[in-house]
Amino acid sequence: MTKARHSLKDVARRADVSVATVSRYLNGTLDLPEGTRGRVDKAVTDLDYHPNPHARRLSLGRSDSIALVLPDIANPFFSRLAAAIEFSAEAMGKMVSLHATMNRGDRERAAIDLASRNMVDGLVFVTNHTPTQDVIERVNRFARAVIVDEEVRGADVPRLLCDNRRGGVIAGQHLWRMGHRNVAYIGGRSDLGSTAARLDGLREGMKGIEPKCIYADAYAKASGRDLALKFLSERMGETALFAGSDELCIGILEVFRDKGVRVPQDVSIISFDDVRSLHLFAPAITAITQPVDQLGHRAIELLLSDGWNEPGFLQKTERLPVHLTERESVSDIGQ
Amino acid sequence: MTKARHSLKDVARRADVSVATVSRYLNGTLDLPEGTRGRVDKAVTDLDYHPNPHARRLSLGRSDSIALVLPDIANPFFSRLAAAIEFSAEAMGKMVSLHATMNRGDRERAAIDLASRNMVDGLVFVTNHTPTQDVIERVNRFARAVIVDEEVRGADVPRLLCDNRRGGVIAGQHLWRMGHRNVAYIGGRSDLGSTAARLDGLREGMKGIEPKCIYADAYAKASGRDLALKFLSERMGETALFAGSDELCIGILEVFRDKGVRVPQDVSIISFDDVRSLHLFAPAITAITQPVDQLGHRAIELLLSDGWNEPGFLQKTERLPVHLTERESVSDIGQ
Repeated sequence: MTKARHSLKDVARRADVSVATVSRYLNGTLDLPEGTRGRVDKAVTDLDYHPNPHARRLSLGRSDSIALVLPDIANPFFSRLAAAIEFSAEAMGKMVSLHATMNRGDRERAAIDLASRNMVDGLVFVTNHTPTQDVIERVNRFARAVIVDEEVRGADVPRLLCDNRRGGVIAGQHLWRMGHRNVAYIGGRSDLGSTAARLDGLREGMKGIEPKCIYADAYAKASGRDLALKFLSERMGETALFAGSDELCIGILEVFRDKGVRVPQDVSIISFDDVRSLHLFAPAITAITQPVDQLGHRAIELLLSDGWNEPGFLQKTERLPVHLTERESVSDIGQ
Repeated sequence: MTKARHSLKDVARRADVSVATVSRYLNGTLDLPEGTRGRVDKAVTDLDYHPNPHARRLSLGRSDSIALVLPDIANPFFSRLAAAIEFSAEAMGKMVSLHATMNRGDRERAAIDLASRNMVDGLVFVTNHTPTQDVIERVNRFARAVIVDEEVRGADVPRLLCDNRRGGVIAGQHLWRMGHRNVAYIGGRSDLGSTAARLDGLREGMKGIEPKCIYADAYAKASGRDLALKFLSERMGETALFAGSDELCIGILEVFRDKGVRVPQDVSIISFDDVRSLHLFAPAITAITQPVDQLGHRAIELLLSDGWNEPGFLQKTERLPVHLTERESVSDIGQ
């Protein structure tokens, strides 16, 4: 069986020329002396090398692809967001290259640099920490970039967020309505805009009562477990928890189960995101539902819109609505 | 505020030369006449264009990146696999570009072509259907490619699967032990190796009793819902279900809940994957647990191993062990 697993490098080595020479010769941007041309042609034939039909497009600076850079692909909120972005990008004829950063600056830099190198048509950037200045500058350098889900201060590109503040308000109102007056807020990182906005909202919904605040390192299950232990050890009569993500909520539920803390009899809980089949949990978990699919759809609309030269476009911040999905994890303690 | 969002194309346009010329001039592979050079230099300065520090690496045919092509990033099995691959690739100094195909041949082709264009160092290919010959040829053309999770017949690269047959055996043995003699198998697509291997195993574990087989179009929640309705309408005394994935299982559980079918009192159920916080479900779901993190880790080990020139390496198939995680969704009907 003839195998055709040879790279441009193999062709270059066999023809004894540089990879750049082969590449430029094959894409028609370089003429070669007859002898060299003969060697390259022969190497291509001998190795059964197939130049990529799209290589020319690369040299023209268009890839028909979009880069999506996000913190954690194992988190179902981000994986569903990624799927929604894929789906909408596909409808616009674009492939998506996804890069997960583990929420670290060095990987954000590397992912963005890789995207530049691959000449993507645009960048969707999602982070869950406060990026360093050089990451922000790299984002700003893209002809088209959109920041999704979490605010990045200093970036000069459009933002697309969910209405975090409103999410806090409706969570607080629901807890208030169910009689809770002493609640804890298990937020994401304290430097995040989403964490602050939800807290502001929670305060408003609870008519100004200050919740006990515990902040997570990451929107992750392991953080949820740690914070649940902290919550239990420091608990001063709080009857309910507002958790900053489904992942945090799952970590909390695991610890509560281990410790025999019953939901909602001992502690009521509201999650944020609602991407985790919470309706099948024991008990089914009440949550603030994020418009994940709409976020993905709108991100692509913004990225590929005709508005990039309009005044104010780069300063735009859009906030999509969230809603309360009431299930069985908040008990009515009727005050 | 100075903005630096200009592309190579902008520089080329301003200097009135081709993008290829600017690119080759900036990466040092092309000398220009003084006048042209002056125009390009001026355009770079005027536009505050920053050539990518890694651009040279591209021209040398190495990207220090790996492409991961998989069917559905919204499926937590794949998103966790992707995270495990990211994690291991990072330890080896490689970035991962992830491409989701929606399990469609045209998108598999496009994703693989994009990966070639981006000169990745290797490909991890995951599919959940039988790919067409041209997709298989494209996979074979990579210097390094590994097929993970699902067999692809005709591909001439190493495979890394979980032990699907063994998963079927231990599911069947557990059902048998709990007294079940009439069971249904809700598999993935009937053309998949994993579907057939698990069915073989299930038969063996059930001492040769043939299960009722219902096949899904996709390992997706929507398919699970459809098949649950089919199962209920055609049910001939089956007391238990073996579901081919957590996503199918969740769809089934939703329908059972809607229809008032109780698990495990009315129907027992075993899932396959165990990536979905099944321990928090009502009831907690017994499952065959896949070694997702090990699959990801081993995929990268294989891809970057020194073994690629060894005889038999391309024909290698590795199967990682699975195990039963017993919870509360199988009732003992004691026969």
